[in-house]
Parts: sequence; structure tokens; C-alpha cells
Amino acid sequence: MIMGRGLVNRLLALLAALAAVPLPSAARAEDGYKLWLRYAPLEGQAKAKLDAFKPRVLTTSTNSATLAVAAHELIAGLNSLDGDKRDPVGSNPSTITLDCRPGNGSDGSFEVKSLRHEIRISGADEIGCLYGAFALLRELSQGHDPAKINLAEHPAMPLRMLDHWDNPDGRVERGYSGRSIFDWWKLPEHLDQRLIDYARADASIGLNGAVVNNVNASPLFLTDRYIPKLKRVADAWRPFGIRLYISVRFSAPKEIGGLPTADPLDPAVQAWWKVRADALYAAIPDFGGFLVKANSEGEPGPQDYHRTHAEGANALARVIGNRGVVIWRAFVYSAEDKTDRAMQAYNEFVPLDGMFDANVILQVKNGPIDFQPREPFHPLFGAMPHTRLMFEGQITKEYLGQATHLVYLAPYWKEALGADTGRGGTVAQIIAPAGMAGVANTGSDRDWSGSHFNQANWYAFGRLAWNPGLSSEQIAREWAAQTFSRDPQFLDKVVPMMIASRQAVVDYMTPLGLAHQMATGHHYGPGPWICDLQRPEWNPCYYAKAGKDGIGFDRTAGGSNALAQYAPSVGAQWANPKTMDEDYLLWFHHLAWSYRTKSGRSLWDELVHRYDRGVAAVDAMTQTWSSLQPYVDPERFADTADYLRIQAEEARWWRDASIAYWQSVNGLALPGDAHPPAHSLEYYKSLSFPEAPGQ
Amino acid sequence: MIMGRGLVNRLLALLAALAAVPLPSAARAEDGYKLWLRYAPLEGQAKAKLDAFKPRVLTTSTNSATLAVAAHELIAGLNSLDGDKRDPVGSNPSTITLDCRPGNGSDGSFEVKSLRHEIRISGADEIGCLYGAFALLRELSQGHDPAKINLAEHPAMPLRMLDHWDNPDGRVERGYSGRSIFDWWKLPEHLDQRLIDYARADASIGLNGAVVNNVNASPLFLTDRYIPKLKRVADAWRPFGIRLYISVRFSAPKEIGGLPTADPLDPAVQAWWKVRADALYAAIPDFGGFLVKANSEGEPGPQDYHRTHAEGANALARVIGNRGVVIWRAFVYSAEDKTDRAMQAYNEFVPLDGMFDANVILQVKNGPIDFQPREPFHPLFGAMPHTRLMFEGQITKEYLGQATHLVYLAPYWKEALGADTGRGGTVAQIIAPAGMAGVANTGSDRDWSGSHFNQANWYAFGRLAWNPGLSSEQIAREWAAQTFSRDPQFLDKVVPMMIASRQAVVDYMTPLGLAHQMATGHHYGPGPWICDLQRPEWNPCYYAKAGKDGIGFDRTAGGSNALAQYAPSVGAQWANPKTMDEDYLLWFHHLAWSYRTKSGRSLWDELVHRYDRGVAAVDAMTQTWSSLQPYVDPERFADTADYLRIQAEEARWWRDASIAYWQSVNGLALPGDAHPPAHSLEYYKSLSFPEAPGQ
Repeated sequence: MIMGRGLVNRLLALLAALAAVPLPSAARAEDGYKLWLRYAPLEGQAKAKLDAFKPRVLTTSTNSATLAVAAHELIAGLNSLDGDKRDPVGSNPSTITLDCRPGNGSDGSFEVKSLRHEIRISGADEIGCLYGAFALLRELSQGHDPAKINLAEHPAMPLRMLDHWDNPDGRVERGYSGRSIFDWWKLPEHLDQRLIDYARADASIGLNGAVVNNVNASPLFLTDRYIPKLKRVADAWRPFGIRLYISVRFSAPKEIGGLPTADPLDPAVQAWWKVRADALYAAIPDFGGFLVKANSEGEPGPQDYHRTHAEGANALARVIGNRGVVIWRAFVYSAEDKTDRAMQAYNEFVPLDGMFDANVILQVKNGPIDFQPREPFHPLFGAMPHTRLMFEGQITKEYLGQATHLVYLAPYWKEALGADTGRGGTVAQIIAPAGMAGVANTGSDRDWSGSHFNQANWYAFGRLAWNPGLSSEQIAREWAAQTFSRDPQFLDKVVPMMIASRQAVVDYMTPLGLAHQMATGHHYGPGPWICDLQRPEWNPCYYAKAGKDGIGFDRTAGGSNALAQYAPSVGAQWANPKTMDEDYLLWFHHLAWSYRTKSGRSLWDELVHRYDRGVAAVDAMTQTWSSLQPYVDPERFADTADYLRIQAEEARWWRDASIAYWQSVNGLALPGDAHPPAHSLEYYKSLSFPEAPGQ
Repeated sequence: MIMGRGLVNRLLALLAALAAVPLPSAARAEDGYKLWLRYAPLEGQAKAKLDAFKPRVLTTSTNSATLAVAAHELIAGLNSLDGDKRDPVGSNPSTITLDCRPGNGSDGSFEVKSLRHEIRISGADEIGCLYGAFALLRELSQGHDPAKINLAEHPAMPLRMLDHWDNPDGRVERGYSGRSIFDWWKLPEHLDQRLIDYARADASIGLNGAVVNNVNASPLFLTDRYIPKLKRVADAWRPFGIRLYISVRFSAPKEIGGLPTADPLDPAVQAWWKVRADALYAAIPDFGGFLVKANSEGEPGPQDYHRTHAEGANALARVIGNRGVVIWRAFVYSAEDKTDRAMQAYNEFVPLDGMFDANVILQVKNGPIDFQPREPFHPLFGAMPHTRLMFEGQITKEYLGQATHLVYLAPYWKEALGADTGRGGTVAQIIAPAGMAGVANTGSDRDWSGSHFNQANWYAFGRLAWNPGLSSEQIAREWAAQTFSRDPQFLDKVVPMMIASRQAVVDYMTPLGLAHQMATGHHYGPGPWICDLQRPEWNPCYYAKAGKDGIGFDRTAGGSNALAQYAPSVGAQWANPKTMDEDYLLWFHHLAWSYRTKSGRSLWDELVHRYDRGVAAVDAMTQTWSSLQPYVDPERFADTADYLRIQAEEARWWRDASIAYWQSVNGLALPGDAHPPAHSLEYYKSLSFPEAPGQ
């Protein structure tokens, strides 16, 4: 057989179609590393418009590092959008002007306006110009007309951060995307290029801070040896407007300071912290501050010395002074406290309102338990008017399918951010003086986030911290256009798929307000039968309270009365199961299996119905994705298809294992149209995954 | 300031020169992912010759998966060498013919011959054709004339393997290049592209097998759940000629089989192993077999049941049958055995010679201790004429600077392979019926191996397993030409630098035959003072035996008499310190500090001299590398320069900490021209690196 190249290529195409022939990466399209900053070449009208505008020239008022980054991004971005084949100088050169006040003393506000032969980017400061450059490229990447840009934006809140739960040895707690992006071992001598690319990605969506280590903190980050390492990272991030923060271990004065105590009121302890803070600020003048998980899940804290959280936080805040902040986590619950776990943080912190120093910020998770697929908003929001509260969301999907399940989280966060606290505004308004922190999903995987669609959650978190008023749809649309394809036929299908994905995961994992039904340790897969863990509130059975009589956690006045922690107007909306939004039903109410839901179905039938609905929604996502193959490169298409296959399998696992267990409790038959579980309850109980990631 | 693009670019160049402006990866050159398979465009005469030959057409006799891979590699490689700008059909089309016997029943031998208008690749089997394709591309990549190719090669040994010490959760024991390349969690549904690219790289250097999990083995790999995962990998690797092996845990019948014992003579245990092996072979017909670390460093083994290693190995070998092999590691030493650790494996295994089944292979490390910077060859080589012995080398540089130190290992392995055992040939000849296994240095880092130069060790190991007769220089030269630049001016400098790097690391870490002087656990950095670990042979002091009277381990007849384990002719060469190669001096002899070495210097002065020589050699490498900047892309140049800076610092650390300790023992002054240690011994002892990688 003799073949010209055309024939050879045809032969290869034929062979490549065989599953048995995996080809090396030379044949690969895209691996996801570029995130939403691909600047894929424009086509058709959009390209014609960019060509007509021909922005060939840049002006800039200074040569700061930040403006150099902005200019580089614009040149590289425009070249890439233009297919990297632009003439060096056009016949009708228009101008992109970067015009901003020197330094970074302001908030990064910017305007981007199309004028005659000019697009003017004006920044309140240099970071404003960088944000403006990214905003312009975002518009152009979506194919918008360069002659019609008119943006004026300012951030909704000052702190827009990622929290990295990364350990110094490179392991990431609740990380599902490889090792840590931080290679502390090779720092300071070697800075990985990825840390530059990371800062660029953060800046492109308006993020301006990062806590580089796990809240379950190693004291190493407070040692002299780590200061040059941290400095190298902070120096690299500064042009991108990313401030560096560290998590600190409250007992560090004992562990590495050689002191007999870490009592925050002890002068020697305070002096020790002062020396550490001063050393950090000497190396990193814009060091952001400390994040602290104290007296939570075994971590040390001020209560070890019979001091309050306020006394502990203030002791650290005073050594930081006006140079930065102390971010103190409100995620506390106690082994001794027999109160409903959902109520403990409120009970602990509300009495301390007004007692925190001005540079202390209390970081509160979106809901009162722990990043469950659905929770009502945290009752602390609005309940501490004299304390700055910050929102903590989880981008890494610890409880929502981890790396592989496609779950777009913007609707999830907006559900909390948009909730009216009944106490002076929505959650978004309450946190506006402070900010938002997202537990990062970044790792060393080539796609950064464990899957291509997980990148959307990093993107959405940044965009929402910049502007919580953006709709989930808009964010999904602009992300998908930049990440995959700006073809409207693609976007019109992928955006609804993304939007629907959140209700899907709620339905197949924990419908109707159930929560915390996952397996122990790795938190992967269902474990509703688990009831033998040491602390009661670690057990799924604590949350579902399923028995012959019914299911659900009674948080009404007749039960734990967690409802009373909300403003009366808010509590009222959840007090009556007959009138309330049933998405929260079993979070607040314990109801008989025969209870009649709004659908007319019994609670049991409705529960099964919702599990089935979740499985069906994943199947629909799979079908939608299949139809999008023409718009996506082969590698990212196949990756996503693989993960949807996993998600479809595991949605069934969640449904079937849960139903098998509830049946063992209630003895009820399935509704007529429901599929029985594929396996026995014993089978589901027997599954074990000691190598599951993220622990 | 208004600038045309030229001006902007000049401004950017200016700004980029400031250390404060790190630019995103759009500006990057190469990240190392392509390894030695870059096929960088030819220039000048080499390009003219390729153009003159114009090999446009391929013929192939079948459409097997392996030949599809070979054809794809040739097309992609030729296009890339030609700058990806080749005409679809040339005017004078020459032919590359792939002509091989169907199937893979032979050994992968091949010929590649330039004829008139043709290059003919003939393979003894299909893998032979693939090897021939890679060999042709290797020649062309070096700029050799396509009209003068004349290769006829066959492998020196049947098993050419990598051993991955990778755990199922993604951590790599003694791994310094990120997480495992194996993502068992996402398998079988998702196979990472990297596993294809890995198999391609292996095949390109003639490797044909890989053990996918750590010798400290998790029993998970023997469970039903792992079979589809392993099958997916094996299926992907098959076209590349890579057979899959697993490490097995000897006690698995108890841990996952539910049996009360793992006694290899127990029929139920044997039946259990049979079922496991049959299940693996049902899924993977060409499954390679088992690797076993038994009764070694706490791992379970047959001796737990008072059975010999032979009884244990044979029990497993019989369930494998003629389908594969059992590779049994000879790396054993005992807490109870008070003999010189260097002698224990020999004592344990030599009496078992002739007792192993035919499909058992004994895997022996290059030296009798454990991959130290320099060891004499292992006395087992040649001492078991009725047993097939396999060579185990360590590509990951656990004891040789790990990720960052530049140490080219071909001279290291060739030192052992070329050693005459005095018992029927060199080590290379002894192992020829079996093969070589290298402990892999692959990981999820973008550069695969933790540094660009570490890739050379992966490459060299494969090339030496194919042909141990290749010189270190030739391997270095062809690797560097493919990986960095084929410019002779570059090669003439980089190759000697690589060759010198091995003696350098010996000199600054453990000169004159010292060994095992590293810190505990992570094995990073010096720890000659360590003498308080539970087992005597875990302590550096056990190996150096330094005291007021002298230093070194007496392995002569007056001491442990390890010398007697070697053939008399071999032992004789090391018996007399006055005449022997002083590179092994303190391995075999305990000598007074005042002992006069061949240089005329006292032992103490010579020791200090060699430490200094090692430091100077690293400084020379740094200078050489600086001079090579014009030949290397910026990113890989900077990465390497960073690591050389680390190596230069750490060479001094090794020298100074070691000298400070020896001085505390011998009380001697330094020779006049020597620099005193930079810090006190107490300082060096105080250093602690709990986050060091690879543990």
C-alpha cells in the first residue's frame, strides 16, 4: 500500500477512530491550562469589526510593573484574537490608551470607553488599568464590537480572596486537582511559572488576595525560613494586585517560639507575634494579614486559655495594626456543646459583637453547617451589626462531586448572597464592607481545577466578588464563550446546562433540605446509614434523623429552634412546611413519611421523585454535552464526556444507596414508577475508597 | 507617550528586564513537557539534506495499532523537523517504508537503512518497526544525513522496565516531581493523556515494561475494583509495547482475601493468588507479572511463616505460570542480623541459588547498600549462576540531590554495569538474560522529572537497558541535542558538564567511599552526626565509623570481611588501600586521619580537598551553564540556572556540615587553604525540613 500524505492522513483518521489507538499529545487540541484567557481567534463579523478598528497602538502614562503587565496582556490578547497574523502597523491605527492614577491607592475602579479611533482605559489606580484591560479583552473575546465598549465598574467589596487549603508538603486538603500550586520546597530560589499564571488569572476576574496555606495551619509559615519564600511569591504577585495572606496556627508561640503558653493576653506571647508580624512586613510591605481557624475541629485557640475569640483575634490584630487585617473564622462547633450544630457559631459569636478591633474580620460560611449542596444562609449574616463579616464559599467541591461532577456554583452562591437577612439588607449588602473568600480549587493539574467546568467556579467566584449583582447566566455565558466557543448555538445550550447542574446535584445527593449525608473522611459518595462516629454531629444520622416516624431535623420552636436565630421575617418563611419553599423542607422540619408535599405526593414519594429527577438531569446534561461536540476541541470534549459518565454513574449511586437506606428505615415500597436500587444496602455499605483524594 | 508596536515591544523588553515584572506564560518558550521528542526544526545543512531527501510517502504493510503509532510519530516528527511548513507532496517523493513481521512475538529488533529514494525500516515485529521509527527520528533530530542512515539494533536484554513507587492516593515515595502520573481515582472512566505520552516516551528509548505501583504495596491493586483501572492503562500502553506489572503485598490474602494466613504453602492462599492472577490475565492477556518486596523494611513476606524467599517467590510464580514473571527484590536487611548490612542480601540469597522457579527473577540493586552516590557493585551479581538476576537502578535521585541537583547518572550505572564480577562476566553480561529496572523519576510536574536535566536520567536508563555498551558521552550528546540544541558548540560544553556532574555529587556529599551520610526520613541534606536511630544500620555513624582514631568501614578480613563475598580477583583489587581506587577507600577500610593517600595528602586533608573539589565542580557547572544561554530557550535556561544556584548552596552545606562534624570528632585543623564551615555544627544539626518531599 503506497500513500501520499493525504492518504496517510486519511488512514490515520481512520485508525484514530479505533478506540485501540490512543495518540500522543502532538495530536492534542487544548489541555485547559489557558483557562478563560485563551483569546481564541475571532471569526466572521467580530473579526471584521476588530480589523476595522485596528487598535495598533497603546499609550501608557508610566512604566510601572502593573502597566507593563496590562500592556503585555493587551498586545498578546489582541494578537491572539486576530489569529496572531496582524500586520505590525495598520493603515488606520487606532489607539488603546491606558490612563490611570499612579500607584495602587484606590480600589481598582475603571472605565473602558470606545471613542473615535481610541479605546480609553481609565483607572482609579494602576490595578484599575489592569482590570480595565482584562475587561476590554473579555468583551472582545465574546465578539463584542470594539467600537461600542462602554464600561464603568467598581468593586462591590474590598477583599476578594481565595483561601488555599494547601499544606507545605504540597498536599491540598479537600483538593481534587493534583498537588498544591505552591512548591515551598523549591522557593525562594525557584518560582514556578504557574504562580505567575495564577496571579494573572486571579487578576483577570478581579480577585485581589490569596491565603497561601491551609487554615489547619502549619507553624512553618511563621518561621524565618519561610519569609524569603513568601516574599518571592508576594513580589511576583504584586504587579497583578494580589496581596498575600497566611493562615496562622494559634499555638505557634509554643511550637516554634519556645514559649510555655500561647495565651493571647500574655505579654511575651504578644511580643512574639509582634516580632513575627514585623518580620513579615519588613519583607512584604503590603502583606495582607492572618487568617485564623481557632478552637475549631481540634485547632488551638484562645479558649484553650479561657479567652474569648475576640480576645484572641484582637491580640493578633494589634500586632498587625493598620498594615493589614486578621480574618477570624466563625466556623466553630464543639464536642461538648449539645446544641444543634447549626446554631453554635451564632451562639458563640453574637455576644462578641462590637468587641472585635476594627481590623478584625469575621469570616462566615454561606450556611450554618458546612458547604452542603444546599443550606439556608448563615444566621450570623446581619446578626453582628458592629462587626465586619466576610463571606466564605467553597469553590473546591468537597461535598458536590469533587473533581468530576459538573456543578456550576454561581447559582449556589447567589442563593446566599441574594438572601434578605431581614436585618439591614441582603447577605451581599452585609458583607460589602469586607468581602468574600473562596476556598480555592486550584492545583497542579494541567487544567488547574480538576475539570474544565470546575474552572467556571473559580471564574464565577471572582466575578461575584467583584459584582454580586451579575446573574449566574451572564457569568456562565461569558465564561463559556471565552473558555470554549463564542458560537451562540453553543452558548444557548451550555449555559442552561450549567445553570441546571446545581439543582441536579442537590436532587441526587440530598433533596428536600437534607444535608450531610456523605461518607466519612473523604466525604465522597453516600453514607446516610453512618451513625457510629465519635462525635454525634459528625454522623449523617444526626442530620437526617430518619426513623419509622419520618425524616428531617426539627429546627422549629418545637425542636432546636434554630429558626429563632434568623430575623422574624426570615424565620417566618420557613416556619410552616405547608407554605415554605420545599427546597429547605427537611432542614427545618421533621415530617412523617406520609406527609403530603405541595406536589400532592407523599414525602417519601416526593423524595424518591427528586432523586430520580436529579439522575435524569445528569442524563440530560450528558445528552446536551454530546450535542456540543462540534463546538469543542477533542481533548476537552472527551475529558468532559468522561466526567459526565462518572457523574451519571455516581448520581445513580447516591440515589440508590440513599433510597436503599431510607427503605430499611421506613419499610415503605417504592412509588410505582421508581426503579429499585441496583444493589442491596449491604453492598453500598461495603464500599470503601481508602485512596480517595483530598483528605 | 505614544508608541508604535515596535516601541511598545521595546518598552516591554525594557520592563521585562526588571526583576519586578514576571510575565504570564504567553511569553514562555518551552516547559519541558515534550522531553527529548521535540523534533525542533532543522536548520542549515541538515535541513537542506532532509529537504533533498524529501521523504513524503510512507508505506506500511498492515494497519495495526502499533504501526499507526509509528506512522503518526514519523509524520509528526518529520513535519516538525521541517518546521511544519512542508509541501503536501514533493516533486521527488522518497519513501519511508515500515516493513515488519505482524504481531509482537519477537524482541523488537530493527534495521533502518537509507536506500535510493527510500528509508526502509524493518522490524522483527511491529514494535521493532516502532523502535525503528524512533531511531530514525533520533538520527534526523541530531541533524544526521537521511541518505546515510544504517542502523541494525537488537535489545541487550528482554526486560527494560521502570518501577514506579507510586501510591494509589497519588503520592510518590521518593518522588520529587509532583504527584503520580497515575490517577487511579478517575480510572477507568478517564485516562489522562499523560499516560499515553508517557508510553510514547518510554517506547522511544526502548523501555517495554512498567510496574505501576510502589513496592511498599497497597493491596488495593489486587482488588476487583482495580482490574478495570489496570486494564484501561494496559490497553492504552499496548500499542507502544509497554507491558504492565504490579507490585503485590505478600499479606494480601489476609488483608483483602479474608484468609487467616498468607503462608505461601497454604493451599487456600495459593488458590487465592491463582484467582487474582487469573482475573488479571482475563482482563490483560499480556499482563507482565508481580514485583515483590518481601521481608524487607517491615514489609510482609514468606519468612513471617518460616518459609524461604524461594518458597514465597515460587508460590506466586506458579499462579503466574508461563504468562509472565515474578520479580523478587533482593533488597533485604534485618533488624536482628548483626552482620554488616552490606553483606546481608548475599548471605540471604546465595544459599537459595537454583531453588527459584524459571519465571522468577531476582532484582538486585546496583550496590549492596541503597543507591548511594557511589557504591561498589552488588556482590550478588555473578554469585547466583542458577538464578536470573535483574539490575535495579534508581532514576529518581533520592540520595543524589533529588529534584534540583544536576547529576547525570549514566556514568553511575555504567560503573556497575561495566564491572567485571570475576564470575563469568560483567554485571551487564550477568543480567543480560533478565533485564534492568529503574525506579522512575516521573511525576505530574510539567517537566515530568522535577528538572529538565533529570529527564536525561530517564532517557539514559532506557538507552542503557537497550544497549549497555553505549557510552555515557554518546547518550548525553544525543539527549542534549534532541532536548536543547544540536549546535556542536552547545554539545561540546554541555556533555562534559553532564559527565562531570556525577563525580561532583560524590565529592561534595560522600567522598572517598563514604556512604549513607544523609539526614533521616527525607534523606535530604547531610546528617553524619546522626547516631540515635532505633536500628543501628539506619544511622550514618554506622557507615562512617568516624572516631578520634580514623574513619571508614573495615570490610577486610580484619573487619566484616564483605570483601570475601566478591570473586577473589575482584576482592583483591580493593583489599589494599595503598593500591586500590581511592574512590572506594572508606567503603572497605577504616583508616587513621593521618593515613597518607596517593595524592600525598593525609586522609583528613584529602577528604577536605575532595569536598572542596565537589563544590568547585558545581561552581564550574554554573559557569558553563551561564555560557550556554544563547542556545537554550529562556524558561528552561532560567529553571536550570535556579536549580544550579540551589545545588551550589547545598554543595556548600554538605561540605561545611560534614567538615564541621568530622572536626568535632577528630579535633583536627583544616588544611591551610580550606575555608572553615560557614556555620557551627550546632547550626547544621538544628536544621529541620518537615515538609521535604518524597517521604
